[in-house]
Amino acid sequence: MSVYDILKDWGITNYQVIDKKAIEEITLGASILATGGGGDPEIGLLWAYKVLEEGKDIVMIDPMDIPDDILVASPACLGAALVLTEKPPNEEVLNKAIETLETYMGKKLQATIPLECGGVNSTVAYAVAGELGLPVIDVDGMNRAFPELQMTSWATSGVHASPTVSTDDRMNTTVIDTQDDDLMAESIARKVAMSYGGISWVATYTMTGADVKRTSILNSQSIAWDVGKAVLEARKGHNDPVEQILESIKNTRNIEGYRVFNGKITDIQREFGGEMNKGFSLGKVIMEGIGDYKGQTAELDFQNEWLNLRVDNELKCVTPDLIAIVDIETGEPIRTDIMRYGYRGSIILISAHERMRTEKGLEAFGPRYFGYDFDYVPVEKLNEKQKQEAK
Amino acid sequence: MSVYDILKDWGITNYQVIDKKAIEEITLGASILATGGGGDPEIGLLWAYKVLEEGKDIVMIDPMDIPDDILVASPACLGAALVLTEKPPNEEVLNKAIETLETYMGKKLQATIPLECGGVNSTVAYAVAGELGLPVIDVDGMNRAFPELQMTSWATSGVHASPTVSTDDRMNTTVIDTQDDDLMAESIARKVAMSYGGISWVATYTMTGADVKRTSILNSQSIAWDVGKAVLEARKGHNDPVEQILESIKNTRNIEGYRVFNGKITDIQREFGGEMNKGFSLGKVIMEGIGDYKGQTAELDFQNEWLNLRVDNELKCVTPDLIAIVDIETGEPIRTDIMRYGYRGSIILISAHERMRTEKGLEAFGPRYFGYDFDYVPVEKLNEKQKQEAK
Repeated sequence: MSVYDILKDWGITNYQVIDKKAIEEITLGASILATGGGGDPEIGLLWAYKVLEEGKDIVMIDPMDIPDDILVASPACLGAALVLTEKPPNEEVLNKAIETLETYMGKKLQATIPLECGGVNSTVAYAVAGELGLPVIDVDGMNRAFPELQMTSWATSGVHASPTVSTDDRMNTTVIDTQDDDLMAESIARKVAMSYGGISWVATYTMTGADVKRTSILNSQSIAWDVGKAVLEARKGHNDPVEQILESIKNTRNIEGYRVFNGKITDIQREFGGEMNKGFSLGKVIMEGIGDYKGQTAELDFQNEWLNLRVDNELKCVTPDLIAIVDIETGEPIRTDIMRYGYRGSIILISAHERMRTEKGLEAFGPRYFGYDFDYVPVEKLNEKQKQEAK
Repeated sequence: MSVYDILKDWGITNYQVIDKKAIEEITLGASILATGGGGDPEIGLLWAYKVLEEGKDIVMIDPMDIPDDILVASPACLGAALVLTEKPPNEEVLNKAIETLETYMGKKLQATIPLECGGVNSTVAYAVAGELGLPVIDVDGMNRAFPELQMTSWATSGVHASPTVSTDDRMNTTVIDTQDDDLMAESIARKVAMSYGGISWVATYTMTGADVKRTSILNSQSIAWDVGKAVLEARKGHNDPVEQILESIKNTRNIEGYRVFNGKITDIQREFGGEMNKGFSLGKVIMEGIGDYKGQTAELDFQNEWLNLRVDNELKCVTPDLIAIVDIETGEPIRTDIMRYGYRGSIILISAHERMRTEKGLEAFGPRYFGYDFDYVPVEKLNEKQKQEAK
């Protein structure tokens, strides 16, 4: 049974065929929206290319079209991004995870959902869907990338990361069933990844079609796709990629993004150890303004992803709102795991989806969860002045 | 179906009914042979009493009588002994572990096997067998207690700790399937216990009846039982418990044990942190000789269990051979987790079973595995002189 038979069965006539160009665009867009994290896009991209080159179909469908009673799950990579670069994925590993999940659940998987927007985990959901002949659903659970498994709109809406099946390339397999305790699922999954040598491949967030509709960040893949297209267009026409990204966000989400800074990385303060450090890339980055922003200083907190931004000591953006830093010329995202002294970038701020801004959401991935001693303030509020000036 | 129906089915007419007195004797004997570890005997004892008081039967059978094709596993406690004292076991937890194991294996469990000789884990196998209406088999996998899951005659003979199901009292459940990698099983199971808060209840070492016969320490429960009886007899008759223990070992195993020291604990050097410290009680103990041993100094290395003994800087016993320290008057074992300055004890040395002394065994739980820079020498060899003097 091919993916098209499934779509026919579900009465779905509206779908997106994902070809190599589409995968390239989605991966670029997702890695920009990954807020500095999400890992090396090259890895997911090559895997998806391989699936397509084998003649398999990758098809994306709208979440509102899926039947309520289907079973879906999120295939993803969990662990240290750096290790991943050394140990590229192997489809056997995720097949084993999904097979074990199906045995444990006593049910077959019917579609995949990307865990987050990110260079690796967006694309992994497409590659696995292609491998298994299932559709991928146009959603994610984070609206960006985040460092921990429980930091999703799914978990904060009562859909849990349990069971999570974690595998490695020697076919070690761990089934983690923590019922409604997503912090426990994260704690165990993280430690299992460490035992495996730093990287694990998981199948997680098993849920129904109805749960997908109720709790996901809807159409986030299409939004990433459009951002990717916009940046590639800008490159072709030698246009300003930041302008194109902001226009794309305006078109797809009907919200204003903010370009708040152009600068050069002048200091990277990495921290190690401590209770919060679970193999994460963690610390602070200083950028000195260039061009219109000369004389200003930007300071970014990061824990795998960019979390908070201050410009001249004034708070400009707080997690879960999105901070993207892109190369001024190419729009290529600057990631926390590869950034270097001297990198030049534009900082873009984008409001998080409303499903990420609930009270439970701010508890789970607002600034205090990460150990920062201030409250969440929406990025629109922190940048009111800029907006007025721009008018 | 009761346990007696199972025995009838297997054609077994020779079995031991384990009543409260038997459980008391076995638990005492096992905690003496636990070489300073194995946890608080009170915990397993009370659980087994409860099972008996509910009218359930606990029956022990000889390993050589069991059918080759039955499926058995070891229910056990894995974690920090100190936490266990604060969180006594709950039968629901191990039932959940075994149920999950059965689902994962697609087969029913037919008997239990004790993981080690120890105050908790010997008795847990009896209690769970009683709960489930299964027989307990007269074996263990360690011939003593040891700190890590892979330190068994089973693992060193090719029977693996995989799958291991780990549960806690909030019904969190983790299935750890590491195929033939028992160090990986230990690594993950240990970390899962830490995530659970320090203690986990596991069902592990799933094996066939044929595997039990080929790889276990046979009749080790009977041996522990006899040691327990001997000590209780000594207490009643105000006899020397050490003498009685040595005689019991001579009777059941046909080997000589050694009484090498009477002394008083004068220094306890506990270590924390470091790569080897995985929540274990770890360090060195100094005892000053009393009575016949006045002027001599004993030095013991421990990591949860006693591992090595030196008397006046001369090596007297090396892991996996057994070191037991018992109260001079009562024969009660002195455990590493509760020992205090001033405790008076006799040190007894006993040869490990041949199945613990294989090349693979010495690699897995000889002194170098624990980080000591010397080789294993059999306790008989290290105490030849004493033996000759005694003649």
